[in-house]
Amino acid sequence: VSGKIVVFNEDWVSYGETVKYRDYAAANAASYGAVATLVRSVTPFSLNTPHTGWQDYNNSVTKIPTACITPEDAHMLHRMYKRGAKLLINIKMGAQHLSDSVSRNTVAELKGILSPDKVVLVSGHLDSWDVGTGAMDDGGGAFISWGALALLRKLNFKSRRTIRSVLWTAEEIGLVGAFAYAKRHRDENQKFTLLMESDEGTFNPLGIEFGGTDQAACVIQEIVKLLHPINATNLERSDNIGSDIMVWANEGIPRASLLNENGKYFWYHHSDADTMDVEDSENLDKCLAVWTAVAYVAADLSIDIPRK
Amino acid sequence: VSGKIVVFNEDWVSYGETVKYRDYAAANAASYGAVATLVRSVTPFSLNTPHTGWQDYNNSVTKIPTACITPEDAHMLHRMYKRGAKLLINIKMGAQHLSDSVSRNTVAELKGILSPDKVVLVSGHLDSWDVGTGAMDDGGGAFISWGALALLRKLNFKSRRTIRSVLWTAEEIGLVGAFAYAKRHRDENQKFTLLMESDEGTFNPLGIEFGGTDQAACVIQEIVKLLHPINATNLERSDNIGSDIMVWANEGIPRASLLNENGKYFWYHHSDADTMDVEDSENLDKCLAVWTAVAYVAADLSIDIPRK
Repeated sequence: VSGKIVVFNEDWVSYGETVKYRDYAAANAASYGAVATLVRSVTPFSLNTPHTGWQDYNNSVTKIPTACITPEDAHMLHRMYKRGAKLLINIKMGAQHLSDSVSRNTVAELKGILSPDKVVLVSGHLDSWDVGTGAMDDGGGAFISWGALALLRKLNFKSRRTIRSVLWTAEEIGLVGAFAYAKRHRDENQKFTLLMESDEGTFNPLGIEFGGTDQAACVIQEIVKLLHPINATNLERSDNIGSDIMVWANEGIPRASLLNENGKYFWYHHSDADTMDVEDSENLDKCLAVWTAVAYVAADLSIDIPRK
Repeated sequence: VSGKIVVFNEDWVSYGETVKYRDYAAANAASYGAVATLVRSVTPFSLNTPHTGWQDYNNSVTKIPTACITPEDAHMLHRMYKRGAKLLINIKMGAQHLSDSVSRNTVAELKGILSPDKVVLVSGHLDSWDVGTGAMDDGGGAFISWGALALLRKLNFKSRRTIRSVLWTAEEIGLVGAFAYAKRHRDENQKFTLLMESDEGTFNPLGIEFGGTDQAACVIQEIVKLLHPINATNLERSDNIGSDIMVWANEGIPRASLLNENGKYFWYHHSDADTMDVEDSENLDKCLAVWTAVAYVAADLSIDIPRK
């Protein structure tokens, strides 16, 4: 591939599996002497839709240009290649690397009335890519994490522990806000009883995705049962919970995410199609209900949620 | 609306219902003094997808600029309007009206061996809009209408009547090729025993959509029964059959279209997303089978299909 533009036309398997090509294509191809990479957009469905997203450079190799093309264009190039056509590609890009600037996490809390130093954290991230409006990634998550506090305050509900809302900054370029928060508040790790983050859609809610011990899962299952009026009583277990809160993955703190009918999430993700239209106000209200109820009950439990 | 840009944000009902806005918005708004129109793209689903298409001008009013915007942009403008925002829109368009030039229908036939002057016509249209590649509208229809003859010739199947394939030109700008054909071949109307056109997708085929008398429908139903090996035995009746062959609607000639699982046809129609990816080779082969079998059996019947 030396001296060539390398095109990656990798079939969608899952976001976790397939995003590797977008993340590491440029650095890997550059290590073999490629001059640029084009990567098929990471999505299971396209209407000629290009998607963007984070990708990694590696300081030991030349930083070559890289861009995502639509699945349709990737397929077309593949068909041309298979029939032996000579492919000549001329790439013109206007992307620039700008210097860093200051950005901040947005933090609010409702102080606990019995154990204010113990914290249930609800969160979403406030930044988005410069395509669409980032309504689903992650306007919805930010909305319900902010809305949970607003709703509890309006209802005048006070919990034993503090409920803290954090709207992370700079998630998209590598969890920058979350890492900075974790570093600055390292001494608070023992005080977190539950970390919650919604960053996988705010479609019709089904319940909670949870990472933690079996004992902790039993507690969360009991909380989720309370959501039967809106049919959101599912508990799914996973070790891979949250994006920003993954920063605390090794701390043994229970972590929860919003489980929702997000089968089309990656149709919109990081594309021009991630607009307000994707959010349904009724679903968003139900997501807010799940988020608020789980955070409130977890913060008001008589015992701390067991941790690893 | 005098002196204003008029934005139409009309909900999708069906293509027939909703396309009226794209077709007649400019002429209607111009008659009230509007300076331009923007019309929400005619589609039930969008990933920020603009669609184009034919629209009508009216010689009695000023020809004002008109363009389609994405459903998402139309919704956004509507939300802004509802909350009382002052909407200032600046339209820049590069569209031009070019002068007419010569274009031709493409015609081929397999001569009938007993009644060569009687004709079963299979057709699709060869032109497309300058977005996507027009694979579904109407590459697929052109493919099966051409392929039917190629397949019969390869199998050395000869029918009593002639099977004629016509790939219409300039369908998109107003059935120009079909009107020219109908005018030139007006004396052949009595010789057509069945007019077939596929212009509504080549997804998984289900059978035939048919317009004609009850007696004629009985004959076509018997033909369609032969397609049970590929589960395409459905016959649906309709008066609104075909696009180009609508030109013969008042002649009483039986007309048939391909019935297929085209629920997503208008996701792609007249947009950048109408690419080769939308065609599935197995479905296309099955569509070709339906098209070829129906045309062949209709052309080889011992009796002419009853007409109005």
